[in-house]
Amino acid sequence: MKTLPDISKDFSQWYQEVIYDAELVDQAPVRGCFVIRPYGWALWEQMHDYMDQRIKVTGHQNASFPLFIPQSFIAKEAQHIAGFAPELAVVTHAGGKQLDEPLVIRPTSETIIHSMFARWIKSWRDLPLKINQWANVVRWEMRPRAFLRTTEFHWQEGHTAHETLQEAQEEVQLMLNEYVLFIQERLAIPVIVGEKSAHERFAGAQRTYTVEGIMPDGRALQMTTSHLLSQSFAHAFDIKFQGRDGAVAYPYLTSWGCTTRLIGALIMTHGDQKGLVIPPAIAPIQVVVVPIYKNNDEYQVVANELDFIKESLGEWRVHWDMDNQKTPGAKFYHWELRGVPVRLEFGARDAKAKQVVLVDRLTGAKHQVPFDQLTERVRALTQEIQQGLFARAQQRVQALMLSGDKLVDFGPKIEEQGGAYVTGWCQSPECEQALGKYKATTRCLLETHTKSTCFHCGKPSPCDVLVAKSY
Amino acid sequence: MKTLPDISKDFSQWYQEVIYDAELVDQAPVRGCFVIRPYGWALWEQMHDYMDQRIKVTGHQNASFPLFIPQSFIAKEAQHIAGFAPELAVVTHAGGKQLDEPLVIRPTSETIIHSMFARWIKSWRDLPLKINQWANVVRWEMRPRAFLRTTEFHWQEGHTAHETLQEAQEEVQLMLNEYVLFIQERLAIPVIVGEKSAHERFAGAQRTYTVEGIMPDGRALQMTTSHLLSQSFAHAFDIKFQGRDGAVAYPYLTSWGCTTRLIGALIMTHGDQKGLVIPPAIAPIQVVVVPIYKNNDEYQVVANELDFIKESLGEWRVHWDMDNQKTPGAKFYHWELRGVPVRLEFGARDAKAKQVVLVDRLTGAKHQVPFDQLTERVRALTQEIQQGLFARAQQRVQALMLSGDKLVDFGPKIEEQGGAYVTGWCQSPECEQALGKYKATTRCLLETHTKSTCFHCGKPSPCDVLVAKSY
Repeated sequence: MKTLPDISKDFSQWYQEVIYDAELVDQAPVRGCFVIRPYGWALWEQMHDYMDQRIKVTGHQNASFPLFIPQSFIAKEAQHIAGFAPELAVVTHAGGKQLDEPLVIRPTSETIIHSMFARWIKSWRDLPLKINQWANVVRWEMRPRAFLRTTEFHWQEGHTAHETLQEAQEEVQLMLNEYVLFIQERLAIPVIVGEKSAHERFAGAQRTYTVEGIMPDGRALQMTTSHLLSQSFAHAFDIKFQGRDGAVAYPYLTSWGCTTRLIGALIMTHGDQKGLVIPPAIAPIQVVVVPIYKNNDEYQVVANELDFIKESLGEWRVHWDMDNQKTPGAKFYHWELRGVPVRLEFGARDAKAKQVVLVDRLTGAKHQVPFDQLTERVRALTQEIQQGLFARAQQRVQALMLSGDKLVDFGPKIEEQGGAYVTGWCQSPECEQALGKYKATTRCLLETHTKSTCFHCGKPSPCDVLVAKSY
Repeated sequence: MKTLPDISKDFSQWYQEVIYDAELVDQAPVRGCFVIRPYGWALWEQMHDYMDQRIKVTGHQNASFPLFIPQSFIAKEAQHIAGFAPELAVVTHAGGKQLDEPLVIRPTSETIIHSMFARWIKSWRDLPLKINQWANVVRWEMRPRAFLRTTEFHWQEGHTAHETLQEAQEEVQLMLNEYVLFIQERLAIPVIVGEKSAHERFAGAQRTYTVEGIMPDGRALQMTTSHLLSQSFAHAFDIKFQGRDGAVAYPYLTSWGCTTRLIGALIMTHGDQKGLVIPPAIAPIQVVVVPIYKNNDEYQVVANELDFIKESLGEWRVHWDMDNQKTPGAKFYHWELRGVPVRLEFGARDAKAKQVVLVDRLTGAKHQVPFDQLTERVRALTQEIQQGLFARAQQRVQALMLSGDKLVDFGPKIEEQGGAYVTGWCQSPECEQALGKYKATTRCLLETHTKSTCFHCGKPSPCDVLVAKSY
């Protein structure tokens, strides 16, 4: 059993090893791509199932649009092509021939979906149109890192069209709120929400709202975004409708997405020296049962009670580790590394005493639990772990959220130690560029107004801004 | 309200129109690709959810492998590259540069998955390895047809590795049986199961088993396949393990998949002059409720009972058509076209009499049903429709399954009228090629032995073979 790198001293290396050791991913033979192994994919399925249900409950319908986008489509919206051109993968040959027009592998699907919206939207009665797709997308990645930056990644992308600007704004906010609930309540990751600066916006958006996390190494991670595209794409793709007044109008568009990057956020936020720690709400395995016996007689005693335990655990996702080639110690290591929140140990002596031992992955605490309290104690323990993980992460984020007045003072600290600084900003691109010296960027505008002057030029600041290094 | 082409006279045109009219698909701006619209995608989600659960119950784990495959990988298995080369789409440029090695968009994932198997399989203890992925794949298609032949399509592909040939054979059979159950019991499509001829086999397989359907126009449709790959890919990708006896061995491999083509099979098998007919077991909407009222007074009477109806229909997927811009007639047309199996009509007079009207999409029959019998009557009606669809399809297939001795006699009939002929075959490729004259192919070998001589050369036939035109 190997030891992971010291998480407090070499966080980056810890991440780099834990993802392979816990069998979440493997390297693929194509640069920048990763194989997501069954345990990693099971995490994504949990995230998918929850968000898919929320997306449907909030009135969206899933559909599927092609992987291929004609190169000319990407170029229709000027900012969009400028933003995505360096990252595109291009199919030039197919069916044994050179193509007349190269096809781009979708880096995002605004252009192809909007070309369809132009066919489907004729009248205000066709609005709102609220579509989502779960898909793989490709953005050629120079510095790949599993889950965080990968050439191919998986996501859901919502695309909607609305009659009025206000409705579109409400949609952007609705899904932003869904993401916040999802990330805080299911993934137990504390978030900071705000609008992106013009420079950090999605290519072609009028406004981009972001949900940022602060990772334990003091770097910010953009976890999900929700965009008000406004009418620019509608003009580019000639999406028009007859309004209630009979006049022809352009709809207001939005898009929003969350990706497999959230798996990276989850690993970094909750992991510890022993490996992953998965919040119970999203854990593919919530309880792992490890029966302990030395010989066949003991096994018989233990086996007699398995049905009872199975029934008592009916409401959770349970894995039964019945492998008799492995020692209990090897099993504990295996499941701790994989972050299963609750371990249930259970031997012949326990069977006779009609009790089990529950072990808390977060604190390591062991609890002897009588059979007749098993269900309620697992319920309590999973809730405790879920809340405990959020509380621990929140404390750490609070300690990493700092306040700074002048970039010359806090810039070197960001560069050396990380941390997210709340500061003032005049909102000029020039001052924003000055952050580059310390490898920092603006993460989002905040609703607070604690700083009256810009971190760089000293001119008035209309609102606070969060500044940090980012993934 | 437009009329569909005559299904009995112009089946092909009927298909071509019903898929658009029922809003299952739309044409995409890339040749051979289609947009699957929400109602079409909801059908696929139903199929996905059922098969995904079966795949897991039978001991497989989902994972995700890259979209891109190095061109050299595809070439490693000689038959594989020969089979797929003409259909490949190739990425030659990415990130603004020409790639050193072109990347193929996966047409199927044997090669990339087997390259990973070579890393994961070391000992007999690592076997069986049973992996599945839900993915999009690309095969450049010259004669595209929505759902049936598309350049990009969606599927699940299972890939497994086993210690012994017998285990691999059992796996191939296990999943073949799962497909048969799925297609017959959920999709209500009668099937014919058998082994493919060497010529019709999957490129690189030792044996391919197929589940074939006979469509109403007398053409066969290959619906799913299950392959015994045996050891050829294991040799090509150097997948080796230490056996129980300590010696190094190559595992036996299988693969099996089902695709969005099943949506096409469903449409063709059950559709009628009014549009789609969806079997209740797989229908995204099992019951559509259409309240009928002429004015606000009547609406109040109707509205009072909606909660009761909602509760009574708790076990089904129900859509409430509350649109008050549309007439009941327009709604009936809309939902009949989309094949919703049960319509529940409900007006003020019904509300007062504490009853509803259930309309059967398959027969058109209307049933007055008292409130207190609603749940049980819907249960009975959905079962009746499910069984009725299968029985109707089975009758039609039986009428299209014919017997033939000599190709010169039955060949012209296949070409002109369609139909699937049970005949004898010496199993030589030369005689198989003779079918081409009539645009027919062998669909599968049968377990029966009713014909003693070959349809072409007259030599002995070891077993019957099914011959037909195919999609």
